[in-house]
Amino acid sequence: MKIDGRHYRTIWVADDGWSVEVIDQTVLPHEFRTVRLASAEDTADAIRRMVVRGAPLIGVTAAYGICLAMHRDPSKGNLERACAELIETRPTAINLRWALDAMRHALAGAPEDQRVEIAYRRAAAIANNDVTTCEAIGRNGERLIRDAWEEAANSRPINILTHCNAGWLATVDWGTALAPIYRAHDAGIPVHVWVDETRPRNQGAALTAFELGSHGVPHTVIVDNAGGHLMQHGQVDMCITGTDRTTAHGDVCNKIGTYLKALAAHDNGVPFYVALPHSTIDWTIDDGIKAVPIEQRDSLEVTNVHGRDSRGRIDSVTITPDGSPAANYAFDVTPARLVSALITERGVCPASREGLLSLYPEQAA
Amino acid sequence: MKIDGRHYRTIWVADDGWSVEVIDQTVLPHEFRTVRLASAEDTADAIRRMVVRGAPLIGVTAAYGICLAMHRDPSKGNLERACAELIETRPTAINLRWALDAMRHALAGAPEDQRVEIAYRRAAAIANNDVTTCEAIGRNGERLIRDAWEEAANSRPINILTHCNAGWLATVDWGTALAPIYRAHDAGIPVHVWVDETRPRNQGAALTAFELGSHGVPHTVIVDNAGGHLMQHGQVDMCITGTDRTTAHGDVCNKIGTYLKALAAHDNGVPFYVALPHSTIDWTIDDGIKAVPIEQRDSLEVTNVHGRDSRGRIDSVTITPDGSPAANYAFDVTPARLVSALITERGVCPASREGLLSLYPEQAA
Repeated sequence: MKIDGRHYRTIWVADDGWSVEVIDQTVLPHEFRTVRLASAEDTADAIRRMVVRGAPLIGVTAAYGICLAMHRDPSKGNLERACAELIETRPTAINLRWALDAMRHALAGAPEDQRVEIAYRRAAAIANNDVTTCEAIGRNGERLIRDAWEEAANSRPINILTHCNAGWLATVDWGTALAPIYRAHDAGIPVHVWVDETRPRNQGAALTAFELGSHGVPHTVIVDNAGGHLMQHGQVDMCITGTDRTTAHGDVCNKIGTYLKALAAHDNGVPFYVALPHSTIDWTIDDGIKAVPIEQRDSLEVTNVHGRDSRGRIDSVTITPDGSPAANYAFDVTPARLVSALITERGVCPASREGLLSLYPEQAA
Repeated sequence: MKIDGRHYRTIWVADDGWSVEVIDQTVLPHEFRTVRLASAEDTADAIRRMVVRGAPLIGVTAAYGICLAMHRDPSKGNLERACAELIETRPTAINLRWALDAMRHALAGAPEDQRVEIAYRRAAAIANNDVTTCEAIGRNGERLIRDAWEEAANSRPINILTHCNAGWLATVDWGTALAPIYRAHDAGIPVHVWVDETRPRNQGAALTAFELGSHGVPHTVIVDNAGGHLMQHGQVDMCITGTDRTTAHGDVCNKIGTYLKALAAHDNGVPFYVALPHSTIDWTIDDGIKAVPIEQRDSLEVTNVHGRDSRGRIDSVTITPDGSPAANYAFDVTPARLVSALITERGVCPASREGLLSLYPEQAA
C-alpha cells in the first residue's frame, strides 16, 4: 500500500539485486525507516527484535534469509545452519516453519551452482502468493462493504471497527482484515475506520493508524473500552478483524479483546466479520475455548507503555505501582456464534464447519 | 484505609487545627505525597489540577475550602467569593454544588463570630456522612462476597473484577465498589482483585492498584481487553464497579468500557454488581442510553500515556502517529438487563424501578 503516495511492500530485494530491505516496525509510527538485511544473521535478528512481525511477513522474511545465506555460501551445510538459526527466532510461528521447509525442499536437491537463483525465485513466489491471497480476501470483503454502502443509499461513509493490526504491515501487502477496507477505499467507497488502540502492545494505535493514515484512509483511534458505546449509538456499521487461528467449526482465536467487541456487535446487531487466509484454519480443532492454548507474555507489556517522550525520543513509561503484579494474556477466543461470517481468499462463508467446507471441500474427510 | 499499616482518609484537618491536608493523587502510584491546603484558592487549585478527584471527595474538599475562607475572613462577602470560585473548578460535578450549597445554607444566617466553628463542624459532618454511607455499602456488598466464598466451600480466594477507581481515593474512606472488598478482606475472607487498567486515564492501574496494594489486598493488573477471556475460563467470580449516574430503572452510566465487561459477565454467567450511594440515582431518567449525555474529553488522553519514565521522572509518551485523530468518550451506559444487582447504603436490590423503590420507597410519586 502507499506511504506518501509511493507504493511499498513490507519486504523487497534491494537495487543491488541481492540484499533485502524491510520497514523497521519497531520505530513506527514515530519514524519511517528501512533496514537493509545482508545475511541470514541480519534476518534472524530482524525477526527476533520484531523489526518485522505478523505471521505471513515473518515467513517471507525467513525465506529471504535463506536466499542471503545461499548468496554467501550455497553449500548444503550452510543451508542447514541458516534454517536452524532462523527457526529459533520465533519458534511458535507456523508460517516461519512452513516457509523454511518450503525453501529447504526447493534447495536441498538442487545443484549447488543453481541454489542462489532457485532460492530468490522461491522466496519471491512465497511473497507473491501472500499478496495474491490477501488481495483475494480484499476483493471478497469489499463486497460486504459495498453492500453496506448501498444499504445506506450511498449517502455517508461506512464506519468499520477493527482491532489490532491485521494490515499490510503484518503481511507483504494488503493485509487480511484491512484488505477489504483498502479495496473499498481505492474503489471510491467512502470508509471511516475506528482503530482500537489494542493494549497491551498498541498495534492498533501504532501500526494500523500509521498504515491507514499513510494510504489516506480516514480513521480515528479509540481506546479498547470505547467500541461498545459506539455500537450502542449506531456509529459502527461493521467490525472486521483478523485471526491467528480459526477452528474447524469457526471459533476465532485473535488478539486479546476481540471477544469483547464481538459481544458488543452481537448485542447491537452489528455484523462481525473475520478475515483470514486458509493457512490459519486448524482443521484438527473444534472448540477453540477449550482447545486453543493462550500464550501468556511478559507482564512488562502491561505495566509499561512505549511511545515518543516529550523530548522526541522513544521511551517507555511505567503506569502501575512497583508492587502490583500484572497478567498478560495475548489472545482470546471468540466463539463462532458471535461471528457473522468469515472472509477468506475463496469467498465469504458462515462461521461453521459447513460454511468452511463449502469453500474448502477438499477438507471433508 | 491503610497505607503501610497506617490508617488514612483522603482529606483531614492538619495538626494546627485549621489547615487541611490531602493526598496528591496526580503523582500516584509513583510517589506518596500529601499537600497542605491553607486557603480557598489552594483548595480550588487542588480540585482543578485533580490533586483530588472523585465526586464525593471533590464535594468534601470544596466544603473545607469554605472553612479555610472563613478562617481567613468570616465576612458574608468572602463566603460568596469563595463559593463562586470553588463552583467554577469542576462545574459538572453534582457533589461539588451540593456541598457548597450545604455550607452556604449553614453559614449565611449565622453570626460572623461563629462562622469558623460552624463551617468546620459542617464540613466534618459531610465527610463523616460520606464515610458512613460507604461503610454501609461495604457491609451490604460484603455479604455477596461471603456468599460466593461459602458457595466455593471456603476453599479458595474469591476473584473479583473491577473497572476504574471507585475506591477510597475517590471518596473520604472505604470507596463504593471497593468497600465490599475491603470489608471482606478485613473480615478474613480471601479475595483477589482483577484490576482493569482503565484506559485512557488508567485510574485502575494507577489508583486502584495502589490503594489495594497499600491496604494489602491481593490483586493483579490487566489490560481492559483481558476480562472476557478470564470470565470464559472461570477466573472471575463476580464483577463490582461503581457508577457516576444510575437511572430510575437501573441503567448505569460509568467509566467507558464498563458495558463491555457487563456483556462478558452476562455471556458467562458471572454476577455483575454495581455499588452506589443513593446520591448517584437520577430519578428523572429511565433510559440511560438515550438520555444520559456522554462527556467527550481531550483526545490527548488517548494519544498520550502518563507514567514514570526510564529516568524515574513523571512524563508522558505519545503512542499514535502525528496525523491520526483520536476520540475520547469518557463514559458508557450499561443497561439494567446486564446488571445482576445494585449495592447501596440501604441494601442490595435488583437493577429495576421496583428494586430501587423497595429501598427508597419515599421516591414513589
